[in-house]
Amino acid sequence: MARNITPREKNYSEWYLDVIRAAELADHAPVRGCMVVRPNGYGIWENVQAVFDRAFKETGHVNAYFPLLIPNSFLEKEAQHVEGFSPECAVVTHAGGEQLEEPYVIRPTSETVIGHMYHQWVQSWRDLPILINQWCSVVRWEKRPRLFLRTSEFLWQEGHTAHATAEEAVEETQKMLDVYQTLMNRELALPVLYGEKSENERFPGADRTYACEAMMSDKKALQAGTSHFLGQNFAKAFDISFQDKNGERAYAWTTSWGSSTRLIGAMVMTHSDDDGLVLPPRIAPVKAIIVPISSDEGKLRDKLEPEAESLLSELNAALGGPHAKIDKQYHMRPGDRFFHHLQRGVPVRIELGEKEFERGELAVVRRDTSAKENVSRAALAGYVKDLLAEIQNDLHSRALAFREANTHDAENMEELKSLFAPGGKGGFARAYFGGSPEDEGEIKYAAGGATIRCMPQDDDTRGNCIYTGKPGARRAIFAKAY
Amino acid sequence: MARNITPREKNYSEWYLDVIRAAELADHAPVRGCMVVRPNGYGIWENVQAVFDRAFKETGHVNAYFPLLIPNSFLEKEAQHVEGFSPECAVVTHAGGEQLEEPYVIRPTSETVIGHMYHQWVQSWRDLPILINQWCSVVRWEKRPRLFLRTSEFLWQEGHTAHATAEEAVEETQKMLDVYQTLMNRELALPVLYGEKSENERFPGADRTYACEAMMSDKKALQAGTSHFLGQNFAKAFDISFQDKNGERAYAWTTSWGSSTRLIGAMVMTHSDDDGLVLPPRIAPVKAIIVPISSDEGKLRDKLEPEAESLLSELNAALGGPHAKIDKQYHMRPGDRFFHHLQRGVPVRIELGEKEFERGELAVVRRDTSAKENVSRAALAGYVKDLLAEIQNDLHSRALAFREANTHDAENMEELKSLFAPGGKGGFARAYFGGSPEDEGEIKYAAGGATIRCMPQDDDTRGNCIYTGKPGARRAIFAKAY
Repeated sequence: MARNITPREKNYSEWYLDVIRAAELADHAPVRGCMVVRPNGYGIWENVQAVFDRAFKETGHVNAYFPLLIPNSFLEKEAQHVEGFSPECAVVTHAGGEQLEEPYVIRPTSETVIGHMYHQWVQSWRDLPILINQWCSVVRWEKRPRLFLRTSEFLWQEGHTAHATAEEAVEETQKMLDVYQTLMNRELALPVLYGEKSENERFPGADRTYACEAMMSDKKALQAGTSHFLGQNFAKAFDISFQDKNGERAYAWTTSWGSSTRLIGAMVMTHSDDDGLVLPPRIAPVKAIIVPISSDEGKLRDKLEPEAESLLSELNAALGGPHAKIDKQYHMRPGDRFFHHLQRGVPVRIELGEKEFERGELAVVRRDTSAKENVSRAALAGYVKDLLAEIQNDLHSRALAFREANTHDAENMEELKSLFAPGGKGGFARAYFGGSPEDEGEIKYAAGGATIRCMPQDDDTRGNCIYTGKPGARRAIFAKAY
Repeated sequence: MARNITPREKNYSEWYLDVIRAAELADHAPVRGCMVVRPNGYGIWENVQAVFDRAFKETGHVNAYFPLLIPNSFLEKEAQHVEGFSPECAVVTHAGGEQLEEPYVIRPTSETVIGHMYHQWVQSWRDLPILINQWCSVVRWEKRPRLFLRTSEFLWQEGHTAHATAEEAVEETQKMLDVYQTLMNRELALPVLYGEKSENERFPGADRTYACEAMMSDKKALQAGTSHFLGQNFAKAFDISFQDKNGERAYAWTTSWGSSTRLIGAMVMTHSDDDGLVLPPRIAPVKAIIVPISSDEGKLRDKLEPEAESLLSELNAALGGPHAKIDKQYHMRPGDRFFHHLQRGVPVRIELGEKEFERGELAVVRRDTSAKENVSRAALAGYVKDLLAEIQNDLHSRALAFREANTHDAENMEELKSLFAPGGKGGFARAYFGGSPEDEGEIKYAAGGATIRCMPQDDDTRGNCIYTGKPGARRAIFAKAY
């Protein structure tokens, strides 16, 4: 096989970019920091979208579209928000051949313009809740861009809801966090921790931010989705108010939640290996590739291709959609054809040579383990279907085992510091923390840049704060993060 | 019923905006000329997208995403293109807190940045064809915006393909024109004429432009989709070249084709009436609404709602998806509840009152004709399914009959001028034309702004040019257009 991918051990970030390039997932765009999502990458995004969109709709949300351009003055209405986003904005100063009276920013996120519209749409408690999601791209200027992880423009979805009571809004924030973690685990095979963020890591303008956090194969953390309880901050800034059941005027309570093409980067860095991309079958655009092989054109045309076509329709029927494909790159050597699909992360390869055709038995190869089985033609469709489910499951189990093996308890600051010191074990550190934002800043400084990723909400133990020693502190996950 | 909609006869453009407002399809955005597509409007767009996207994939296309921002210098590489689009561009001059070295434009269309990428992706004839589509928004600054028809930002899809030969590219251009006209007719119930545009109406940078043209209910034309044969113009500007089968270097041949949220405006102006929105069932987000009616809360809870739920699942099973809904706005009077769905264009209403419940017979009302039928409970699902197909068909037939009744042959310039003179019949004028772009300009001036919408390609008759008198001219459709 061609060695076109830098080994992970040698240089992790080169390995990451090599995997993306070899799988043709994305390219750098001519505008610095922006990316082109190529068809192989976009096919993954379409599957992520389909899975997320269905869940959003099942939980009562509808889609809408808000404008790309936001008057600069809107950002300024929420103090935290403008402070957080203004430095990252791209600014439109001219349009239609004229200088604009007021500059517009390209949305970095849409709380402000959506707040402006909700103000108009909400009059009475009967207009609530509003449960809207938007699929779009946003622009946040990046000084140190990396494909899928940090780009100046990225694709995402942003949910924006408004409620009559704080309780309902809190419930919504939790519900969407739960939708995220469920889908990331089940569909993307990403074992994510989830829970509240510390104050330092809060969304600008939120009262509380919750996140899903995954461990990449270099043991660093990656934030994979966030859900924000915005309190009444945006409702007050944009006057989203309504007449409640008692005839009183009240401000609404809002939430927002988002996930992005970053998830593709998360899957690359969780599942892939030194040969290239590995994808969870439920998200892979092509789940199985049938490769007819013969140097005899007549046999290909008369025997192997018709056989491949008939296998294809059986397979697609079993898989419930056009998820299998046939490879017809006969100008390439078989090994190169295998490698082609291997590098693109196709979970299962089915080899159909002359011998296999005569015997009525096919060679089935798993992408994740390279394990090869001979499977009788009659059993193939069912076998592949089960195998895909097994691969999905194994990818998740393997990532979970990896995370667990690289999660360490830190009983005191010395232990925490040594985990993140040069040559330290790295990974996730579990420690009790009950200090201030400044204390967290001190820890970050002392522990090589590690920050609180989240306070896992299924962990209700309490202990002495690792920094202040005060009792009753919650458990937090510290890690270096993307 | 509330008279919240200006009658068409009184003021067509007010009627149009009233229908959109009453159906809650879209709102004006705070940035002038931009729009917010509200959930009811976006639901229509999602159905249009689903139908188009499936057809694009069935014809071998894949989706991708190219960046929003394009270096200004890219536009300048194709002379026609920059001349056509530069005056409409929104320009980003600052980002990340700094002035940019080179300004970026927000994509008005993506031929240039895609050409730049295809240059990198295409080396050999084996890399061709490239068949890519993109769903995104584009920005073209509008001086006289109108919701869905002309907005400074709009949602669309843009297909961009590259081929080894001119023949293949021409075939692609035709194929996508055919996809458009087929889907507009069958799914959107828009009877469109289709064929080549005159030179004056060509896309900036195209060798040939083809379009689908629909007649609105005010007899004006609306361009509903375009397909461009770009020749080698962009291939030369961006060096999309490859080694052909003979080992020679050659430029590729490219196409592009697009359709947008304008289609929603087209459906509004083709099918709706003075009561509000009328939608073709195949595109309507809600196809049938079940309205349980009783002033007795106990009966509602114990009898009518369970009955409505069971009808709903039968109906959704028959319709193959969650296309029916139940109305539970019990705080409103029945008439207002009916009106609510009527104004939103729900094709079929099913009334379930106490009488209907006792009799086992429901009242089924068509949105398009207001015709009401009593249908036995057992027959309901099948009846509604057939009725939706009938409504779809009737909307198309009615629009086609309207177009035909308002299409007139013009044998000479006097006839043409009188059609478009104040108080003239308007509509579509069929006339032979073989003149120059300047001649067409003269006709536009003389005939009240009427232009050639297209030269229908299923019309191969030839005649004497209406302007120059020269024989052998093709038939063209003249109309005033949106």
